This record gives sequence, C-alpha cells and structure tokens, in this order.
Amino acid sequence: MPKRGLLIVISSPSGGGKTTICERLLRHDRLLSQSISMTTRSPRGRERYGREYYFIDKAGFQKSIRAQQFLEWAQVHGHYYGTLKAEVEKQQRAGRDIVLVIDVQGGLAVKRFNPEAILIFIKPPSFKALEARLRGRGTDERPTISGRLRHARLEMAQALNYDYVVINRQLPEAVRQIEAVLTAERLKVRKR
Amino acid sequence: MPKRGLLIVISSPSGGGKTTICERLLRHDRLLSQSISMTTRSPRGRERYGREYYFIDKAGFQKSIRAQQFLEWAQVHGHYYGTLKAEVEKQQRAGRDIVLVIDVQGGLAVKRFNPEAILIFIKPPSFKALEARLRGRGTDERPTISGRLRHARLEMAQALNYDYVVINRQLPEAVRQIEAVLTAERLKVRKR
Repeated sequence: MPKRGLLIVISSPSGGGKTTICERLLRHDRLLSQSISMTTRSPRGRERYGREYYFIDKAGFQKSIRAQQFLEWAQVHGHYYGTLKAEVEKQQRAGRDIVLVIDVQGGLAVKRFNPEAILIFIKPPSFKALEARLRGRGTDERPTISGRLRHARLEMAQALNYDYVVINRQLPEAVRQIEAVLTAERLKVRKR
Repeated sequence: MPKRGLLIVISSPSGGGKTTICERLLRHDRLLSQSISMTTRSPRGRERYGREYYFIDKAGFQKSIRAQQFLEWAQVHGHYYGTLKAEVEKQQRAGRDIVLVIDVQGGLAVKRFNPEAILIFIKPPSFKALEARLRGRGTDERPTISGRLRHARLEMAQALNYDYVVINRQLPEAVRQIEAVLTAERLKVRKR
C-alpha cells in the first residue's frame, strides 16, 4: 500500500497569484496532482469538462451539496465551486499529493474536515500590487475589482489561520518557497 | 524587537553525517548560527575554546549540571557534552536561528524543555553504509566502532519521535532537504 498522499490547499485573494503558482508547481513536481473541482460557472477559453473543472448546472450542484459530497464548496462572485470528497480521497489513497486551489473559506472548511491538510496562503506584497494585478488581468470590470479588493482584505485577515504564509514578491521565489514547504512536509514524521 | 529565532536540532547516529551536513548548512545559510556546547573532552586539532566548544573540566561541568544551566547534556563515550540554556536563549532572542548538533537523548531533552524546537534526524541509508563511514573515518578503534553501531540501532529507533527524517544518501541532496525544512519552518505561521 503506498504512503497516503498529502492534501495541500493553496489560497490567495483573487489576483494574488494562486493559479499561476499552482501551474508552475504542477509542472515541476511530478508527485503532485490537482484535484478537479465542480463548478456552475461556464467554461472559459479552452477549458474542458473533467480537465479544469466538472462543469455542472446549479440544480446538479445543489444536489451534491445536499448529499454532502463536497469537502468544501463556496459561492464566489455568483458561481458555485466545490471539491468532491470522493475525488480527493481516491487520489490520496493512491499515494498522490493533491493540491487544491481554493479560496480562504474553502481552505478553512477543508482544515475542519481534515486537520492534516496543509494550508498555504499566498499574500501579495501589498494591496497596491494586488490592485495592479487585478487591473492588469483585464478580465474584470471596474466595480468587480473594487469588490474583490474589499473581499481580499477580509481574506488576508484569515492568513493567520493558515499553516504557512508565502509572500508573492517574485513568482520564481514564491514557487521555490512553496516547493520547500512540500519537500519539508514529505520529510515530516507522521504522528498518530 | 526581532522575530524570535528558531531552535533546530540535528541528530544522527555517530558517523551518520550530522557534523558535515551542519557545516554545509552554516556555510550557505546566513540566518543560521551554531550554539557552542560545553564539553569535558579535550580539544582536537585546531579546535579552540569558545569557537567549537567551551572546554571545561569534569568538576566545572558537574557544577553547571547542578545549577540547571543546561538545556540538555549527555555523557557520550566517556565525555560530557552540554548546551547552555543562556547561550541559546540569548541568540534566539536576537532573532538568530540556532542549530544544535547533538545526539538523540539530547534532542529529546530539548523537545521536552522547548516543544517548539524542530528536531531533524539524519538517517544513514543503511547500517552497512554507517559501518563503512565509521571505519573510513579512521579516528576510532575497532571495539569503539562496534559499540557505536550497537548504540546507533537504539538511536535509530528514536527517529519516529523526531519531527523530520532525512536519509543521507548523497550529501548535497540531504543538505538541500534540510534547507527546505528550514525554509518551510520560517514560512510557518506561529500559533500561540
């Protein structure tokens, strides 16, 4: 039986860099896989069912909530996103380390359900930098940006409930630091 | 006030590589300092009082034991070695991360006194490898080597009480892994 995989949660405020960082991690780290979330938002660009997300309608999502199939779920900017317990469990049991890229509410929900989950919070170096990134991204309208910034302040306050905080000054350095966390967690003696 | 420094303990069976690894760590990591132990053994080679050790006679050492000045102390192969509480405290308070290279008994004593200490155990890849290293070192007599190997078995059994276990297959890889542990521990959110 393989050693049970780790469950890693990466969160940041919207625009904080979690998606890009996770892509880099997955590219360098062959022991790491991403769990595929379920969502009610529509596919963007080349996104495909079962690769980036399981796309589903609202009724289907709510059915899964009622059946308690989610490790965590949240409504973000009008869309539902959720991580399926069965999906994560299957991968961990196969010895794969799983990374979830989710928001702070989701991260804390995962920790409640599974205290062994490793929570990593990615902080932008400043609010100014966060704002610049959100505007630079160009996928959001102006009112959405200010809403996201307000939401970001609330999320940042939760960083202290995470296990690790990485400041995303320079992408390669942030990636290197998270890789160090993964290396260390794999060397940890697991106590019962 | 600087952020309080970390207290890191590195242990391995005699011949397991802890001294060499620690030298490498100290060379690369400017945030890390070594605590200077007190010992009753005689200086070897170029060792100097207050640099490698505080050399002291048996009576002086026992006086410090009675005065509870040691964070840990142990008698190893006929000599006393001890880490002074005041020395470690002063450095941690100044924000320096301190590494102690001590045996397993000492490491577990440190953890009892200070549960926040980070215990790293360095394992040789096998007993055969450990034996080869002890013989190759050429500083020990044959009966001492077999005594050390017996002692090593006892120490290895304690690895599960450490926080991290690093297998010293190749020196650079072992050093890299311990550096990752230090990076991760520095990113950790300190909870009260």
